[in-house]
Amino acid sequence: MDGQKSVGIVRTKTLRVIEPNHPLLLKCGKYLGPIDVAYETYGTLSEARDNAVLICHALSGNAHAAGCNHPEERKPGWWDIMIGPGKPIDTDRYFVICSNVVGGCSGTTGPSEINPETGKPYGLEFPLITIEDFVTVQKLLLDKLGIGHLLAVVGGSMGGMQVLQWAASYPDFIDAILCIASTTRLNAQSIAFDAVGRNAILADPYFKRGQYHDDQQPIRGLSIARMIGHITYLSEESMRAKFGRQLRASTDYSYEFNSEFAVETYLDYQGQTFIERFDANSYLYITKAMDYFDLTRQFGSLNRAFAAAAGRFLIVSFSSDWLFTPAQSEEIVLALGAEHKDIVYCNIQSSYGHDAFLLEAEKLGRVIEGFLGSMLQKIRTGRLVRGKPLTDKAPVKRADRFKRARVDYELIDSLVEPNSRVLDLGCGDGELLVRLMQDKKIAGQGVELDEELVIRCIQRGLSVIHRDIERGLEMFPDGTFDYAILSQTIQTLRDPQKVLEELHRVARKVIVSFPNFAHWRCRMQLMFSGMAPQTRQLPFRWYNSPNIHFLSLQDFDGFCRDLGITIERKLPLGKRTAKPIRLWPNLTASQAIYVTSRKTPPLK
Amino acid sequence: MDGQKSVGIVRTKTLRVIEPNHPLLLKCGKYLGPIDVAYETYGTLSEARDNAVLICHALSGNAHAAGCNHPEERKPGWWDIMIGPGKPIDTDRYFVICSNVVGGCSGTTGPSEINPETGKPYGLEFPLITIEDFVTVQKLLLDKLGIGHLLAVVGGSMGGMQVLQWAASYPDFIDAILCIASTTRLNAQSIAFDAVGRNAILADPYFKRGQYHDDQQPIRGLSIARMIGHITYLSEESMRAKFGRQLRASTDYSYEFNSEFAVETYLDYQGQTFIERFDANSYLYITKAMDYFDLTRQFGSLNRAFAAAAGRFLIVSFSSDWLFTPAQSEEIVLALGAEHKDIVYCNIQSSYGHDAFLLEAEKLGRVIEGFLGSMLQKIRTGRLVRGKPLTDKAPVKRADRFKRARVDYELIDSLVEPNSRVLDLGCGDGELLVRLMQDKKIAGQGVELDEELVIRCIQRGLSVIHRDIERGLEMFPDGTFDYAILSQTIQTLRDPQKVLEELHRVARKVIVSFPNFAHWRCRMQLMFSGMAPQTRQLPFRWYNSPNIHFLSLQDFDGFCRDLGITIERKLPLGKRTAKPIRLWPNLTASQAIYVTSRKTPPLK
Repeated sequence: MDGQKSVGIVRTKTLRVIEPNHPLLLKCGKYLGPIDVAYETYGTLSEARDNAVLICHALSGNAHAAGCNHPEERKPGWWDIMIGPGKPIDTDRYFVICSNVVGGCSGTTGPSEINPETGKPYGLEFPLITIEDFVTVQKLLLDKLGIGHLLAVVGGSMGGMQVLQWAASYPDFIDAILCIASTTRLNAQSIAFDAVGRNAILADPYFKRGQYHDDQQPIRGLSIARMIGHITYLSEESMRAKFGRQLRASTDYSYEFNSEFAVETYLDYQGQTFIERFDANSYLYITKAMDYFDLTRQFGSLNRAFAAAAGRFLIVSFSSDWLFTPAQSEEIVLALGAEHKDIVYCNIQSSYGHDAFLLEAEKLGRVIEGFLGSMLQKIRTGRLVRGKPLTDKAPVKRADRFKRARVDYELIDSLVEPNSRVLDLGCGDGELLVRLMQDKKIAGQGVELDEELVIRCIQRGLSVIHRDIERGLEMFPDGTFDYAILSQTIQTLRDPQKVLEELHRVARKVIVSFPNFAHWRCRMQLMFSGMAPQTRQLPFRWYNSPNIHFLSLQDFDGFCRDLGITIERKLPLGKRTAKPIRLWPNLTASQAIYVTSRKTPPLK
Repeated sequence: MDGQKSVGIVRTKTLRVIEPNHPLLLKCGKYLGPIDVAYETYGTLSEARDNAVLICHALSGNAHAAGCNHPEERKPGWWDIMIGPGKPIDTDRYFVICSNVVGGCSGTTGPSEINPETGKPYGLEFPLITIEDFVTVQKLLLDKLGIGHLLAVVGGSMGGMQVLQWAASYPDFIDAILCIASTTRLNAQSIAFDAVGRNAILADPYFKRGQYHDDQQPIRGLSIARMIGHITYLSEESMRAKFGRQLRASTDYSYEFNSEFAVETYLDYQGQTFIERFDANSYLYITKAMDYFDLTRQFGSLNRAFAAAAGRFLIVSFSSDWLFTPAQSEEIVLALGAEHKDIVYCNIQSSYGHDAFLLEAEKLGRVIEGFLGSMLQKIRTGRLVRGKPLTDKAPVKRADRFKRARVDYELIDSLVEPNSRVLDLGCGDGELLVRLMQDKKIAGQGVELDEELVIRCIQRGLSVIHRDIERGLEMFPDGTFDYAILSQTIQTLRDPQKVLEELHRVARKVIVSFPNFAHWRCRMQLMFSGMAPQTRQLPFRWYNSPNIHFLSLQDFDGFCRDLGITIERKLPLGKRTAKPIRLWPNLTASQAIYVTSRKTPPLK
């Protein structure tokens, strides 16, 4: 344990949030009471009470998220990499609360606690609980602690489900909603894995309807359930890297039924350590709560679930997560977009699979730190964007460097009306958006494909969606924006027509800039040297160019005609001047900026 | 059961292949005997004894592959969609044999049979078996049946492992090796799933070291193992389509621990039907045999495993198979290529996951029928290729149609030396290869990306690999071919340099053809109309063209110079004539064919 960066020794406290005489009506229709909640807090609540951050834990987590409960503890809390002084969830800045869920087995009332009516553990007499109940109980805890508003709710996996439930159930209560590696509902495959795990517990002869506390425990069933779960937490790639087909002890097969492959030993170990710290009853109840979670079912549609949410959303997925996939995170982004929410989405490249939310400290840390930091700044100063120059942590590809040295920022700036809503496609590190936000007070949204640039945007406080624009922009309803900007990108697209049609669907006006392939230098080069032109605007060789479509002003004019797009302004530009060229523009302009709009749907 | 296309009523026979007094030495070092083998046969062995096809079954399969064992049987044999009169494995043409593996529970000696030494079932006293032992026992059966040579060995999943083992252990015994949805070794994730399944059986209190035959059976353990397995046989996509989050009976949650989601009921059913027809001991032994299977370990390297194989290989994978992935099939292709084997590889687009080998009747059927049919023709006539015109079953994309209307076939034909080895990249339906095989007696290999075209090539008897050439050609060692042909494709590649370097690595000479972007019509159009040129050779609009790089003869000359490629021949061509143009070729040629070679490695 690194003393310098830890919250140090913390104590898990317990608070009674439901008294026996006023039991809580659960979602299932049954009553539960009393309810005690185990929780920990780190950091200090500010005088303005504006810095409270609630952490929601995953299936096997608990209230002990950071620091150590006593000096000899071997491992610190489950998210110690994220929570602490100077860490992404900085306990010098935020007041952090984490509590054990109801139904759990780490201090909060759960099925292995004593049922006051019988004097025996609840076992299967405990009522079925839901993610909604988790959140209701967390809210009761916050009420008891006197916290009337949250800066943020943060959680990964099942923690992310609680985060989404918070946004849906208490839409005005939270400024920032951070949902990591999660989903709004389990798919059939995940339900299947959960069901098999529960079957293994229920099939264990020692389970005895959950009344196993005086006798041998259903450890074999619980450990099989954990093993199944654990396989789904890792990616095939990470398992291959970690274990491959390595044998534990020998170089030869034993030809016996023991755990001889390293991966088998690892699973045995995971099963073994799990039964020491977790409870079979809680495993049944909590996995069932996850299976039941379904915001669409709760609210009629996912869009409606988020309709009232007032906060800003950060959605994070991991590329190799096959339990709660990037596609499931994108469903959330889609629904949030439909409700015009302020969204940041990042799909972090990681080989760790679902467990990445516990392991990808560096990248996930930058994202969380950036998002939370800008939100606290917004609450306190009204300004979301942090314009400070960024360190060049990772090298940027040559093509991107070229793109971002674009000379048309100034002109685009002049074309945009103040206070409008602007979508910047391929927004890079957000330079143009920051500029427009400062000069024109626009509401900006970026879309960017490069992970590093997305993270830099998040660190600056920008709203950015990590996405390939060629996949379409279905998260934005028709007419979401006043302007969509496509700067120096159209010639690199596989399908310019599809993208342009999407842009005209989501924005009232589209601003497009591109290099002019019919500039006289290009014409001359092809005419007289008989070679693919190379110019300042088209600096690449034919075989290594990111530009895969070549167009002139006249080509773009024809394209707009064919697609029924109206050209509102056409600015042919010279090399260095921002003054439009009037004479023979298709011959003399080295690039052009168009402002276009579309009244009618495309002719099919 | 469709009487017309079925082999009808078949009987499972049993043959003793190992007598008690001469037990078989197994791979694990122990002896087993006697061994009885259950098997079925369909069709008639030809007089030349050249039409025997061995079918190898998967984990839960048995000898009953086709037809029905009695008139009331509800379901026909496990691969009845593939085996029967007029079916892909046509019992009017082939003599088909399928036997139950040793260690199984469907008639062949296995761990639940009586151990003659104790008079009780073997249980865990049965020796550990391997895929090699399966194949040894199958060979003993064929010996007894008097079959001295196989036209083909066919199998999916664990059946494919046996197929590969056959090719490695009996390299001269088989003409055609058909390995479907399989692997040369399980990865860590698959071992993990198997291990958890075995744990569930071993943890069942009724298992009793396999001596459960007089008492209650370990049905809960076996059914949990089957459920885990079954999840891995389906894709997430197919589970979503089949079940989603549908509830079995009610529209409301029951808030009880029963199987209320449709997917849970389905798994229960799979578990239930499995325990009625399968045996827990066999499940342990067979999954362990799969875990142990590792051709690399057996032979020191995968290449060496296949070094002696004399037959032709068909490798098939399914796009959504996450148990034995397309990448694992490509590993096989890689090793076969390194050993200069004759390879056909097809990755069939399917949403069914691993189970696709039992379900994708149409596409898999065409592939198997085509491959087997051309092999039988080869055996009997010496000619592999079936040049018959193909019906246009599926529409071909416009860009492909254009490519295949290429005018340069005749010239390329004239450039290729007789009896050489030729690689055709983007070979389409194999027209050029068939032509070269007929005119020049070449040994041809195609590479094609489009699934439908790959299947057509297989139906014609061509050797084709389903692959995007931009991923490289690492399955072909340096200098595998005399010629590599890249016809009208270089301008559509994302990375022409990488592909050209690969081609010069794998072939002595490279034949490249492309449209000339500096043809006078192009120059004139850009010069005077100021628009992206459109010509007969470049017929697309700037925004919908598959051509993403534009080059002239002079550009290609420079490219060769930069890369240290020697131009051996340069044939600038007019619109319709095959006679090379001599005067101002870069201005007057509408296209060009180059023959290039490379002596030295590229300068870095």
